[in-house]
Amino acid sequence: MTIAGSRDEKFNRRLRLGMVGGGRGAFIGAVHRIAARLDDRWELAAGALSSDPERARLSGEDLLLSPDRIYSTFQEMAQCEGEREDGIDAVAIVTPNHAHASAAEAFLKAGIHVICDKPLTTTRQEADRLAQLARETGLIFAVTHNYTGYPLVRQARSMVAEGALGGIRVVQVEYAQDWLATRVEETGSKQAEWRTDPVRSGPAGAVGDIGTHAFNLAEFITGDEATSLSAELHTFVQGRRLDDNAHMMLRFASGAKGMLWCSQVAAGVENGLRIRVYGERAGLEWDQENPNVLLFSPLGEPPRMIRRNGYGANEVSRAASRVPGGHPEGYLEGFAQLYSDVAEQIVARMEGRDPNPFSLEVPTIEHGLRGVRFIEAAVRSSEAKAAWVEI
Amino acid sequence: MTIAGSRDEKFNRRLRLGMVGGGRGAFIGAVHRIAARLDDRWELAAGALSSDPERARLSGEDLLLSPDRIYSTFQEMAQCEGEREDGIDAVAIVTPNHAHASAAEAFLKAGIHVICDKPLTTTRQEADRLAQLARETGLIFAVTHNYTGYPLVRQARSMVAEGALGGIRVVQVEYAQDWLATRVEETGSKQAEWRTDPVRSGPAGAVGDIGTHAFNLAEFITGDEATSLSAELHTFVQGRRLDDNAHMMLRFASGAKGMLWCSQVAAGVENGLRIRVYGERAGLEWDQENPNVLLFSPLGEPPRMIRRNGYGANEVSRAASRVPGGHPEGYLEGFAQLYSDVAEQIVARMEGRDPNPFSLEVPTIEHGLRGVRFIEAAVRSSEAKAAWVEI
Amino acid sequence: MTIAGSRDEKFNRRLRLGMVGGGRGAFIGAVHRIAARLDDRWELAAGALSSDPERARLSGEDLLLSPDRIYSTFQEMAQCEGEREDGIDAVAIVTPNHAHASAAEAFLKAGIHVICDKPLTTTRQEADRLAQLARETGLIFAVTHNYTGYPLVRQARSMVAEGALGGIRVVQVEYAQDWLATRVEETGSKQAEWRTDPVRSGPAGAVGDIGTHAFNLAEFITGDEATSLSAELHTFVQGRRLDDNAHMMLRFASGAKGMLWCSQVAAGVENGLRIRVYGERAGLEWDQENPNVLLFSPLGEPPRMIRRNGYGANEVSRAASRVPGGHPEGYLEGFAQLYSDVAEQIVARMEGRDPNPFSLEVPTIEHGLRGVRFIEAAVRSSEAKAAWVEI
Amino acid sequence: MTIAGSRDEKFNRRLRLGMVGGGRGAFIGAVHRIAARLDDRWELAAGALSSDPERARLSGEDLLLSPDRIYSTFQEMAQCEGEREDGIDAVAIVTPNHAHASAAEAFLKAGIHVICDKPLTTTRQEADRLAQLARETGLIFAVTHNYTGYPLVRQARSMVAEGALGGIRVVQVEYAQDWLATRVEETGSKQAEWRTDPVRSGPAGAVGDIGTHAFNLAEFITGDEATSLSAELHTFVQGRRLDDNAHMMLRFASGAKGMLWCSQVAAGVENGLRIRVYGERAGLEWDQENPNVLLFSPLGEPPRMIRRNGYGANEVSRAASRVPGGHPEGYLEGFAQLYSDVAEQIVARMEGRDPNPFSLEVPTIEHGLRGVRFIEAAVRSSEAKAAWVEI
Repeated sequence: MTIAGSRDEKFNRRLRLGMVGGGRGAFIGAVHRIAARLDDRWELAAGALSSDPERARLSGEDLLLSPDRIYSTFQEMAQCEGEREDGIDAVAIVTPNHAHASAAEAFLKAGIHVICDKPLTTTRQEADRLAQLARETGLIFAVTHNYTGYPLVRQARSMVAEGALGGIRVVQVEYAQDWLATRVEETGSKQAEWRTDPVRSGPAGAVGDIGTHAFNLAEFITGDEATSLSAELHTFVQGRRLDDNAHMMLRFASGAKGMLWCSQVAAGVENGLRIRVYGERAGLEWDQENPNVLLFSPLGEPPRMIRRNGYGANEVSRAASRVPGGHPEGYLEGFAQLYSDVAEQIVARMEGRDPNPFSLEVPTIEHGLRGVRFIEAAVRSSEAKAAWVEI
Repeated sequence: MTIAGSRDEKFNRRLRLGMVGGGRGAFIGAVHRIAARLDDRWELAAGALSSDPERARLSGEDLLLSPDRIYSTFQEMAQCEGEREDGIDAVAIVTPNHAHASAAEAFLKAGIHVICDKPLTTTRQEADRLAQLARETGLIFAVTHNYTGYPLVRQARSMVAEGALGGIRVVQVEYAQDWLATRVEETGSKQAEWRTDPVRSGPAGAVGDIGTHAFNLAEFITGDEATSLSAELHTFVQGRRLDDNAHMMLRFASGAKGMLWCSQVAAGVENGLRIRVYGERAGLEWDQENPNVLLFSPLGEPPRMIRRNGYGANEVSRAASRVPGGHPEGYLEGFAQLYSDVAEQIVARMEGRDPNPFSLEVPTIEHGLRGVRFIEAAVRSSEAKAAWVEI
Repeated sequence: MTIAGSRDEKFNRRLRLGMVGGGRGAFIGAVHRIAARLDDRWELAAGALSSDPERARLSGEDLLLSPDRIYSTFQEMAQCEGEREDGIDAVAIVTPNHAHASAAEAFLKAGIHVICDKPLTTTRQEADRLAQLARETGLIFAVTHNYTGYPLVRQARSMVAEGALGGIRVVQVEYAQDWLATRVEETGSKQAEWRTDPVRSGPAGAVGDIGTHAFNLAEFITGDEATSLSAELHTFVQGRRLDDNAHMMLRFASGAKGMLWCSQVAAGVENGLRIRVYGERAGLEWDQENPNVLLFSPLGEPPRMIRRNGYGANEVSRAASRVPGGHPEGYLEGFAQLYSDVAEQIVARMEGRDPNPFSLEVPTIEHGLRGVRFIEAAVRSSEAKAAWVEI
Repeated sequence: MTIAGSRDEKFNRRLRLGMVGGGRGAFIGAVHRIAARLDDRWELAAGALSSDPERARLSGEDLLLSPDRIYSTFQEMAQCEGEREDGIDAVAIVTPNHAHASAAEAFLKAGIHVICDKPLTTTRQEADRLAQLARETGLIFAVTHNYTGYPLVRQARSMVAEGALGGIRVVQVEYAQDWLATRVEETGSKQAEWRTDPVRSGPAGAVGDIGTHAFNLAEFITGDEATSLSAELHTFVQGRRLDDNAHMMLRFASGAKGMLWCSQVAAGVENGLRIRVYGERAGLEWDQENPNVLLFSPLGEPPRMIRRNGYGANEVSRAASRVPGGHPEGYLEGFAQLYSDVAEQIVARMEGRDPNPFSLEVPTIEHGLRGVRFIEAAVRSSEAKAAWVEI
């Protein structure tokens, strides 16, 4: 358990964060800011918070940014911050999906580390190009598959890696919500509007918005790669232009078989990201809505409830925890973990040392690229009557 | 709530039950006998309890059967009981799957009502022929999809029928176990042996044994018909000859979409039959391992925990309950409900009246036939790389 | 796991049960009859089912009793059955509380084993006298503290006895319901009427009806004796003559401390009997409304979910189970266990052998006597402003 | 739902927080700092972080404090900060209990608002004197009964106040942990050391450390006052000088009856603060370890699961939420709510306006005083064999 504020003594300042998107009326930007703040490794130093200049200015003032670091465009911000002595250490890109690529490119070219929301881009081509650029620059490029920041998700991954389950056989992953069960995109919800708009969201709806998280979680925990899928995407709400429900079967490189369900019309479900992994020797269950417990069921023994920072919690999950067992941590803490891990990676580079190995659990652009390939495969399979398609 | 023993006053005797299969060492036969006994509508009067004559005799003595009604073969039993003045009112067929059809045929031809375990038969041809025969005789033919006997499963069905969910969109059904996670069929388990033997089980393993229950439950609760499926069957345990895991996508006549997962290698899961149904206006969840609660989630309202015989339980579920809410009923009570309902149907015929309408919830041979078609479609789809196949 | 019907081969008949009380309109009588029937060890052979002769006759006919064994009074029944060659092997006494003692006495004097509902009697004097008589006769006298028939309750008891928890420190037991939250005794409910009537119920309401179960469970599982208590009984519903809520602190002989809460006005709770036991080395939790799991939490290890007939279930709980893990058993099965155990005890006597040791788990008149002493102490303590009173 | 960072536009800075205690090796200080930071209303500006000057200095450097605002003593800090133009707006006192009173007094006298950990003081006299002083100064004095910051705790309180439960009858509250189940105070745990030391903790152990939270929660939610109690405190771990388990019965001014259990030896329980409130018309249940759901059970209707920021969440709980339903918030967010509410109260005073009414939910010194009276009464009752004692 690491209580926040434990900066390395030699590196005696908070890192500076810039933000693209996330101005007034946005949702995920505020989450990123809380996440950055929570462990006291970051301070918000600059922002191009809206594509609308006036909104950008007002949003910057809300956040107490220095006037000279409130930018109208991300291009301007990338250039100026790249040149400042006290320029930002990293940028968080929290715009709608279609704007990720160009913004990320600008900051990479300015030599600034990137923390980008998912899905990485709206097309495979963009994603490939961006990944290529990121590899060339050698900069840190984190993709906020934030659910990997939950301590017990990391413990699940490490338990699989250590062989606690034996060879994996079956992966059941799902991510269900109900907030798009009716046509809310016509009621003035900004969130719903862009998520159901192919121009801003890309070719997939639920699959891109939440299916990518489910897919990422399955690959993250199993350490395995899904090589092909058979998918049926469907739109239940009349007039909607993107899928709001998808069913898929998955085949993994190891021979494991999986199912993935994502839905935004599952009446009564709030944010039901859930994964179950069954191996030759044991099974694991984790549910995002009750994230402080990991059910571990070895064959032949009663299931054990491993609790965050409790008995049975290993060093991997303890390293990602703040408070003792029984004091629930949640969504924001999981998200914060990614920011703290990126900070650790950046400081380690500054100090010319290896980062704490646990900090390397943060998803990178390679995971972001997997997500885009997943979306593209799912759409293609569904168009081909659920034919098996390579990912 | 009907407390047992409430036989109609004019019909003053217990019905007589015969049994084929279910002798020493069997499992499901004993369950059928408890189920028949529980509500005091039946007495066991005759049996051909094993294909081995000596075992048949000993098993009959265990059960205190009259010696002249302990039979060596079902043929003999069908004939004798059909001719006796005090012959059995119905026969329960609880053999391995491959023997269902011939036994059922014998009793139908002897004019005796049939209660048959599932899956109905091991081939589609047999199933069709048997269904044809059953229709011609007009006799009662119940198939023990016993999970439909749970009070809250029936309430779920009636709530869907009454429109409490609006049009159905998504059906997630699964039936997972772990008892075949290792090669137990080689350790002397009679149960495992025949269930993994294509000769006695038919062309499917997990799909036939438990997938059929999941499929039945989905159609039972939604009142909808699954018209096609795309399936991947797989055998994880080396040397096993039948599938022990299957993933499927389903399309329903109404336009609803579904997923079905069945597995007998899901480490840590005992008997995880679970269904979730999402409609335009509400969702429903039910889990066989916690069967006394039905979660009902209307859009816009907090989810409600409807408890068996508790507040919110309707007349359909109350009619299938014995004891007050909070006094859990379970597997045996759900199974017993089918026996009591068949008794009601038989007595109503004897008395020339309409049966209590709730007693008609019992699955019939038509449901059994659906199960066989489901198995056949699943096997065919899997062989064709998960192509969509009509059910 | 014992599948029903496994009578000892040498003793080739069902035992004969008589019943006092339990006629039309009664509740618990029907439960006793299902319980007796479930494992096929008993047949109902005689009854004095109501103190009203006409109702007694009709009730006997409902149950298909032979006319000569439908009695108008328990006195007549005790005498006749005691003299018959094929007389009943045991009697079940299921009347309101005030009638237990005289009926039990009559059957003991007729040499007939007794199964009596709880609380044993309405006064300590009666209980003492009856216990004395029972001891003198040497007959079996079971008291249906039916919750001790649940397999995992028995496992909890055996785990404590084997030292799995170390020395016991704290016992939290509670039994809450809400069916008396309003003045239902004035709405025609027979059940509510007699339970709130001091003449028929005795000096306590909730304490006698359900508090005794909670108390019994605490002593049963810990194997310890509560030596004194401090209680506050209260009546919340205006006009009611007996307590409908009670709070108590308990001191055990071993030095353990406990709390007991019973209530029949706990809005929203159906039948919430729950116990938690904490020892030096581990804790245990069990909840009657979810009875197929026992939570076992050894200090320093993740809590384990021991499931009925599942991994971690011991021979004690397996002996009291019927169906495999994951196939829930409930209230009726737990109740049935007591009947089957009494049958085993009776047959063992007939055969001159020791009974299966697990059958001796059935609560006896000594436990019934403890219950009466508990009621008397609770009432006395409450009258003395919650002074500590010996039990 | 208020996303963090929404400072009032006219008041364009973060508030400045000082801290007494909470240096290296401490636990709750770091929690307070995260809590203050989370909603971006505060910045840590000064500290007297340890009574050891060297540790105070190092701790201040860890936290990036300006060297001139790292103090060796709280007296010095109170004086200097009280005089600075940019002095702290409030001080957080997070020392062991015995040091609360003198520190709080110093800051009140310096005109600085106080946020103090609980229990307020170690004696009733100190508490009375401090409360008197606080009333005279008119300064804000918050006591961090942090569990009142959970959104659904506040909703529970408002539902009771609005009469959703009718008159309250029964309150069952408990707070169990197991971290003191063995003699950890001798293993080098600073936390355990002072909590089991009467000099630093005061006259009670578990009762003071966690019992006060349970007591506060009961009064907070019911809006009722417990007027007397009957308690039995006990020490199970040999050699320990303070209670590690306590059982109590409570009487409320309204006539409601309650039980309170607190324990730090409940093997397997991490941080089990749980409350159940039963009224004439409905019941409520809330469990700190699963804080995003509030079970509301109106008589005659199925229980409803009210989820944080979900359907059925009212404006009170929404005002205390950050992220949408299904994205769990936990302990730190609940704690943060108190800090944000105090900030709102301070800013409102600065701006000469009424504060947002929801911000007044924060417990004050009057609640702190209740806690001290509760401790004192519990100890006195236990010494008098659980006699009823006024609170």
